[in-house]
Amino acid sequence: MKTAREYEESLRKLNLVVHMFGKRVENVVDDPIIRPSMNAVAKTYELAHLPEYEDLMTARSHITGKKINRFTHIHQNVEDLVKKSKMGRLLGRTTGCCFQRCVGMDSLNALSIVTYDVDRKYGTEYYKRFLKYLEYVQEEDLTCDGAMTDPKGDRSLPPHKQEDPDLYVHVVEERKDGIVVRGAKVHQTGAVNSHEIIVMPTIALREEDKDYAVSFALPSDTEGIRYIIGRQSCDTRKLEGETLDVGNQLFGGHEALVVFDDVFVPWERVFMYGEHDFAGELVEKFASYHRQSYACKVGVGDVLIGASQTAAEYNGVDKASHIKDKIVEMNHLNETLYCGCIACASEGHREPSGTYSVNTLLANVHKQNVTRFPYELSRIAQDIAGGLMVTLPSTRDLESPETRKWIEKYYKAKAGVPTMHRMRILRLIENLTLGTAAVGYLTESMHGAGSPQAQRIMISRTVNLEEKKKAAKRLCGIEE
Amino acid sequence: MKTAREYEESLRKLNLVVHMFGKRVENVVDDPIIRPSMNAVAKTYELAHLPEYEDLMTARSHITGKKINRFTHIHQNVEDLVKKSKMGRLLGRTTGCCFQRCVGMDSLNALSIVTYDVDRKYGTEYYKRFLKYLEYVQEEDLTCDGAMTDPKGDRSLPPHKQEDPDLYVHVVEERKDGIVVRGAKVHQTGAVNSHEIIVMPTIALREEDKDYAVSFALPSDTEGIRYIIGRQSCDTRKLEGETLDVGNQLFGGHEALVVFDDVFVPWERVFMYGEHDFAGELVEKFASYHRQSYACKVGVGDVLIGASQTAAEYNGVDKASHIKDKIVEMNHLNETLYCGCIACASEGHREPSGTYSVNTLLANVHKQNVTRFPYELSRIAQDIAGGLMVTLPSTRDLESPETRKWIEKYYKAKAGVPTMHRMRILRLIENLTLGTAAVGYLTESMHGAGSPQAQRIMISRTVNLEEKKKAAKRLCGIEE
Amino acid sequence: MKTAREYEESLRKLNLVVHMFGKRVENVVDDPIIRPSMNAVAKTYELAHLPEYEDLMTARSHITGKKINRFTHIHQNVEDLVKKSKMGRLLGRTTGCCFQRCVGMDSLNALSIVTYDVDRKYGTEYYKRFLKYLEYVQEEDLTCDGAMTDPKGDRSLPPHKQEDPDLYVHVVEERKDGIVVRGAKVHQTGAVNSHEIIVMPTIALREEDKDYAVSFALPSDTEGIRYIIGRQSCDTRKLEGETLDVGNQLFGGHEALVVFDDVFVPWERVFMYGEHDFAGELVEKFASYHRQSYACKVGVGDVLIGASQTAAEYNGVDKASHIKDKIVEMNHLNETLYCGCIACASEGHREPSGTYSVNTLLANVHKQNVTRFPYELSRIAQDIAGGLMVTLPSTRDLESPETRKWIEKYYKAKAGVPTMHRMRILRLIENLTLGTAAVGYLTESMHGAGSPQAQRIMISRTVNLEEKKKAAKRLCGIEE
Amino acid sequence: MKTAREYEESLRKLNLVVHMFGKRVENVVDDPIIRPSMNAVAKTYELAHLPEYEDLMTARSHITGKKINRFTHIHQNVEDLVKKSKMGRLLGRTTGCCFQRCVGMDSLNALSIVTYDVDRKYGTEYYKRFLKYLEYVQEEDLTCDGAMTDPKGDRSLPPHKQEDPDLYVHVVEERKDGIVVRGAKVHQTGAVNSHEIIVMPTIALREEDKDYAVSFALPSDTEGIRYIIGRQSCDTRKLEGETLDVGNQLFGGHEALVVFDDVFVPWERVFMYGEHDFAGELVEKFASYHRQSYACKVGVGDVLIGASQTAAEYNGVDKASHIKDKIVEMNHLNETLYCGCIACASEGHREPSGTYSVNTLLANVHKQNVTRFPYELSRIAQDIAGGLMVTLPSTRDLESPETRKWIEKYYKAKAGVPTMHRMRILRLIENLTLGTAAVGYLTESMHGAGSPQAQRIMISRTVNLEEKKKAAKRLCGIEE
Repeated sequence: MKTAREYEESLRKLNLVVHMFGKRVENVVDDPIIRPSMNAVAKTYELAHLPEYEDLMTARSHITGKKINRFTHIHQNVEDLVKKSKMGRLLGRTTGCCFQRCVGMDSLNALSIVTYDVDRKYGTEYYKRFLKYLEYVQEEDLTCDGAMTDPKGDRSLPPHKQEDPDLYVHVVEERKDGIVVRGAKVHQTGAVNSHEIIVMPTIALREEDKDYAVSFALPSDTEGIRYIIGRQSCDTRKLEGETLDVGNQLFGGHEALVVFDDVFVPWERVFMYGEHDFAGELVEKFASYHRQSYACKVGVGDVLIGASQTAAEYNGVDKASHIKDKIVEMNHLNETLYCGCIACASEGHREPSGTYSVNTLLANVHKQNVTRFPYELSRIAQDIAGGLMVTLPSTRDLESPETRKWIEKYYKAKAGVPTMHRMRILRLIENLTLGTAAVGYLTESMHGAGSPQAQRIMISRTVNLEEKKKAAKRLCGIEE
Repeated sequence: MKTAREYEESLRKLNLVVHMFGKRVENVVDDPIIRPSMNAVAKTYELAHLPEYEDLMTARSHITGKKINRFTHIHQNVEDLVKKSKMGRLLGRTTGCCFQRCVGMDSLNALSIVTYDVDRKYGTEYYKRFLKYLEYVQEEDLTCDGAMTDPKGDRSLPPHKQEDPDLYVHVVEERKDGIVVRGAKVHQTGAVNSHEIIVMPTIALREEDKDYAVSFALPSDTEGIRYIIGRQSCDTRKLEGETLDVGNQLFGGHEALVVFDDVFVPWERVFMYGEHDFAGELVEKFASYHRQSYACKVGVGDVLIGASQTAAEYNGVDKASHIKDKIVEMNHLNETLYCGCIACASEGHREPSGTYSVNTLLANVHKQNVTRFPYELSRIAQDIAGGLMVTLPSTRDLESPETRKWIEKYYKAKAGVPTMHRMRILRLIENLTLGTAAVGYLTESMHGAGSPQAQRIMISRTVNLEEKKKAAKRLCGIEE
Repeated sequence: MKTAREYEESLRKLNLVVHMFGKRVENVVDDPIIRPSMNAVAKTYELAHLPEYEDLMTARSHITGKKINRFTHIHQNVEDLVKKSKMGRLLGRTTGCCFQRCVGMDSLNALSIVTYDVDRKYGTEYYKRFLKYLEYVQEEDLTCDGAMTDPKGDRSLPPHKQEDPDLYVHVVEERKDGIVVRGAKVHQTGAVNSHEIIVMPTIALREEDKDYAVSFALPSDTEGIRYIIGRQSCDTRKLEGETLDVGNQLFGGHEALVVFDDVFVPWERVFMYGEHDFAGELVEKFASYHRQSYACKVGVGDVLIGASQTAAEYNGVDKASHIKDKIVEMNHLNETLYCGCIACASEGHREPSGTYSVNTLLANVHKQNVTRFPYELSRIAQDIAGGLMVTLPSTRDLESPETRKWIEKYYKAKAGVPTMHRMRILRLIENLTLGTAAVGYLTESMHGAGSPQAQRIMISRTVNLEEKKKAAKRLCGIEE
Repeated sequence: MKTAREYEESLRKLNLVVHMFGKRVENVVDDPIIRPSMNAVAKTYELAHLPEYEDLMTARSHITGKKINRFTHIHQNVEDLVKKSKMGRLLGRTTGCCFQRCVGMDSLNALSIVTYDVDRKYGTEYYKRFLKYLEYVQEEDLTCDGAMTDPKGDRSLPPHKQEDPDLYVHVVEERKDGIVVRGAKVHQTGAVNSHEIIVMPTIALREEDKDYAVSFALPSDTEGIRYIIGRQSCDTRKLEGETLDVGNQLFGGHEALVVFDDVFVPWERVFMYGEHDFAGELVEKFASYHRQSYACKVGVGDVLIGASQTAAEYNGVDKASHIKDKIVEMNHLNETLYCGCIACASEGHREPSGTYSVNTLLANVHKQNVTRFPYELSRIAQDIAGGLMVTLPSTRDLESPETRKWIEKYYKAKAGVPTMHRMRILRLIENLTLGTAAVGYLTESMHGAGSPQAQRIMISRTVNLEEKKKAAKRLCGIEE
């Protein structure tokens, strides 16, 4: 298993084509906007080496039997699924943001189910190929970007009917040694911190769309791949030099548009090629795993609750009954989320390939709550924090001799609490509810792993209405 | 294990003193108000004999190794806890009401923890006594009423300071062969369908209240015990003769005030006697188990969802997008509850006695949601059902030659659906949201196993705020 | 203006054909099930004679200049509209139920707009006819049932395409002196307490449905009209003799199915006949007025809040911070409803006939909140009341010498509060949240004056989205 | 009345001491961070000159009879109060942010009530003084900052018990010609766009705190006053040059800490001096007016709804039933807020001085909803907008030749909609829900004019619980 330092060094060796603010980023690892997100991924390496987290953060490879980072592991039982949820909460609490590495784990697990199923139907050899690739990932302890979401264009049309055929990733050429692909993936979390990028289709596909039924993995710096970083609320505070105004001093996240400009994929990296009837299964398996992965937001919720309680203490109002009740409500909502990610894991089942999958219905129910509760948690946090959270002067004013004394004098709250501590905790709440971290804690909670309506459709499909109708009819005496 | 018929026969042998509507009830088993609740308990016996439910409904006794009804089982591992939640949902869905038998199971499990712990501290022999009693319960496959809630009087005063010392059950005399107790327990669900009544204290107690620190079990027809049945919304519809107006044609529930008018308890039935410092633990263990038991409301929710979907189909509106979305929302809320009762079980742990206990925090979070979601589910069900649910004429009007034709003509909805079917399903929704079953599905969901504020206090106590504050401070750079 | 006594006497003179529980009701006025609803209507007469309510309860007729009961008044200005909302709240608080008379007032006002508009287009004389009828209603101070909701059958088909053409009220014969109508109206609130019944179409109609475009008024005991009373949760408690178990000792409501079995209507009582293009307007005007009328639920909310506060005091918990906060929340929700019915009135406008109409958008917004908040108020009320609300023995047990002492002893709460007072207030909360009054406070709040989806459609239609889009585009610099 | 240009010119003449980002701001009016907020205030001048808004934006002075800007007007009747709410919505919709000028209007109106009341009790001449000042404000058409919120320090202590006596503004010296004051006011919205600053106490005061019972008005550039500007989420995007990334291209808001460093106030500008028994009344009057002023958020809500609908159209999903329903819900919530600000105005009353005051209870109810609904509106807006809102590249990437084509290609949605338009509308939604405008639309909605708990306390105080209890007791037959 790599250490955090080894991980960072391995990133330096990549030759990524990254754009941001209209310019090519030459040194990705040290870029002040991107670095906090690299720090967050690095925590997934660091914690795996700490004895107290060994049980959660590592596993035994079912291929090699070696100890591996859990993020590269294929779930072998229900316990593995439950540990995945707990690992997510742990890292969410540790980083206070999106640590980006779950998406690769979810892609690997989904492929470990679907490549096997495809082989069973078509006699192909994707599963063997996949296992070989997996072993490489486990041995090298790689971070993979799992790339699913295509730009989609006109949403009322299937891929092959789009005016621009590239609005979904597709095969444009078959060569003897592999295929050439074109298209883009949007909203790619952690893309430039990844060694590998694993591409999957984004919707169920029909015969006419079979060129779009393609899944493959590539090194992230393969020729023809280009990254354009999205901007976040308050992103440029990270450029202001040492300042508490960033809120979270250590960690962050990022998303990128990833463009595939006629990129070559060798056969040994291709995991689906034309089997359109399995695109839907791959999407659903990945989506269920990834909806479970929103366990991480429980950990971010822990940070927000901790920050709110601290702010209440610094403001000297933590004993007020309405404040205490609001903290209880925050915890109640956060633990309700926790129940969801534990239950969908605990109710998991074995797939034919031996991989364990979460309960689809409950994973969707969990994610649906994630599209709601973090917003209410944020609202309560802002209530507890007080208006000062959005009217605080900048750190520069705290440092300036002309204004420092006024800030120290007039923003002093509870005796013994340095004004700077109060500013720090309020900036953290701002970060989580309005700033860079709000991107992950709120909007990503809404749309990541599928927008709320996607979960409602899955709930509708997976729930057993007939059994419920039968129960009701029997009780009121309707015989049909 | 008893069959349902044997259970009914065993009840006939009891000589209970039961009052209702100002009169002594001579034949409890066949009383039309009470009988549906007996039917519901009987289902816990019947299903245990069906092969498809064997896994959920039965267990191996850890004392005798025999197959027993799970309702008399002491949880031996996490799987047992999870199965308990699933059994609750199954029976809730089967009966559409409160099936009453969980409270005894929860009492037995709580005692199996606490009697052991008391013995460890005081060198007493309660646990041995308890195991002997438990074996009897398992062998005879008995239904036990777990009696916790005292009348409480002035809630600002502890038991011994009450004007009337009997407002909490207490020991009034110690004899050579046992003790004499006095007091009452309120809201006793399923009391008159029980063979045994297991009494526990209702709050943590101090030295001065040690006469109130008493736990014991008695046959339900012991001399001096008296039952006064509470009335429910729409209870007397059951007296109207064969009619669909009752909604649930088969099952119901009941609650009673149980009076202990100087009742003698032999020593072998006493499980706590003066060890006031363990009263709080007994309350908390029981409460956690019993909060988990609200898994049953998920099953009742299944019935309400099934009834709502059926009503929508009968009304011919089931394809309307807003109706479909409301059904999704009902399922979403119901499955969120399910996540709670699964998660608190799946996160259970072993107590020193070997008994497995649910996760206290998550059990409280689960129950807190139970105090909210069934109300919203009922609101949506009434939305889907339409106003006719509360303006339907009585069954008698449907039978009367003068009015039958008008009712048939004007309450006809979708072609092919008999008007009577429409009436039946609407009466079931009325039953669940306003009638006898609403008592269980709504008000009991609110107050059973502790009112919402009780759960909030437990959430506040069990959540780890320090860990959360630490995480927040670290991220924003506060060093203390 | 009639007194309450004169109103009652006038009802005795009616010869209504009423069915209930499978039998013809011979004496409607004194029937114990129906009487409380008559009492509620009588309050609309009684309060009009009290000086302190004169301003709210009476008005000057714009036809005769005489002082009249406001329930027979045509709104002449915004102040009239506001007073209507306040009158609704007053009577809701006074009766704790549906007082039934608003629907006639709303029908009269809607007709005063639409008959005028029809005349303007078609040169008919409906408005003159209507004014003559109105003068009669005002002079005699009559209670009118406004009858809109048809059975509707298959909701996907228009009236003339229904298998049974009678599922919407329609003209079956034109005679020299009038028309003959057939059909039924469902959910008719207060029908058998009314002197008159005013019939209107229930949906917008096209040319092919012009036989259904009919509006008229008839004495409620006209030959061929038949009433079948719907049953309510807990209705038969009113048959149990003197008992506190009914909750509300004085008032109630009722709904009936009204059948028109080929009923003759003379021309002077016909207000629309074939002008199908005005059916939609009549429905919308009536609906807006009637959605405003749900001001009454604010008054019922006052009663529920008062009962909850009283229960909290009797339970001795009214000083607990969480209880105080729940009472605040109840008031907050109730007053938010009040804002809706005041705002839609205050933003009213003059129609061509001179009648003042409420703001359609805000009336729909108000009613939409009424479909939500009373349910939450009920939930909180049950939280505050405690579980005893649904486990209380019957009044008969309180009266029985065998059980009285136990009930007195064990249901005693705060010193100085008679147990019977506690029972009374809990039975009132039961009545409002589960019993007969819940029919009005909950389910009628949901579906009366149109189900929630009906309001959402109207909100969607009346809101000015273009103006909002324009504002947004201007701010972000989109020029089109 | 000043024009917008005259307003801007008048600001240039001020000599304000303003600090931001650690530096003195030399040119306040043209500072790119501050200028958008000046633009917003300027709109209050501009619209007053447009004939279509004359009725809302202007009034007749009750002192001079001249036409004045409504922001300087004292409400003379209920209609004035209603127009104030409508003016707030209009300007909120026009600017999409906080336009800052209402706080001065609310201060003037509160003083017009309280100075009169003080005079009646103490025979002082504050009201005369105040009218003279008011005439000046009206004549010059000035923008006033109404300054209430003190830093407060330890909230459990009254002003005179604070360790630092300056944590509330107080009089430190009485001179012949006036007084000298010291302290600070926090969260001062629009401070540096104001000509005048009107200071009021922030809480009810007792005898011991009478030095803190002081109210006065000063030119904003009086010697000794210093402004430290608070920073907002995404504030520095305004420094990035011409870019659509700011979201709202035109308007914004700002808050400042205002320090009074021993500032002299001449007697003619002092409106309260030691009459501590009127501090509470002044706070309450101001608070009620200012809670009404949150009418503006309805206008900002209009912008957010318009932006969401536009985004849905650009994404090609505006016909999806769930999207349409979400737009309805947004409108429903927004119009519910509107009902609140209309109702509290429409239910206003005359104070002894002749000034009209809003209904206190309803103003508090309104504001309480403002602390909730904008958060839910934002959540829905983010749902509709899609994840792209937070992953969009910067404008610079759209301009860069290297990346422009990829952005154009892959962010294209509906045919005919320029990618840049889609980016603009998404950036506006980001601005309103996470960016600079979220400060006003969310956090200020929470805490401005008092935090939610302040409203709950006022609701608790102003609601008539006794009347409600009486109604409940009468109905269930409790006679005391």
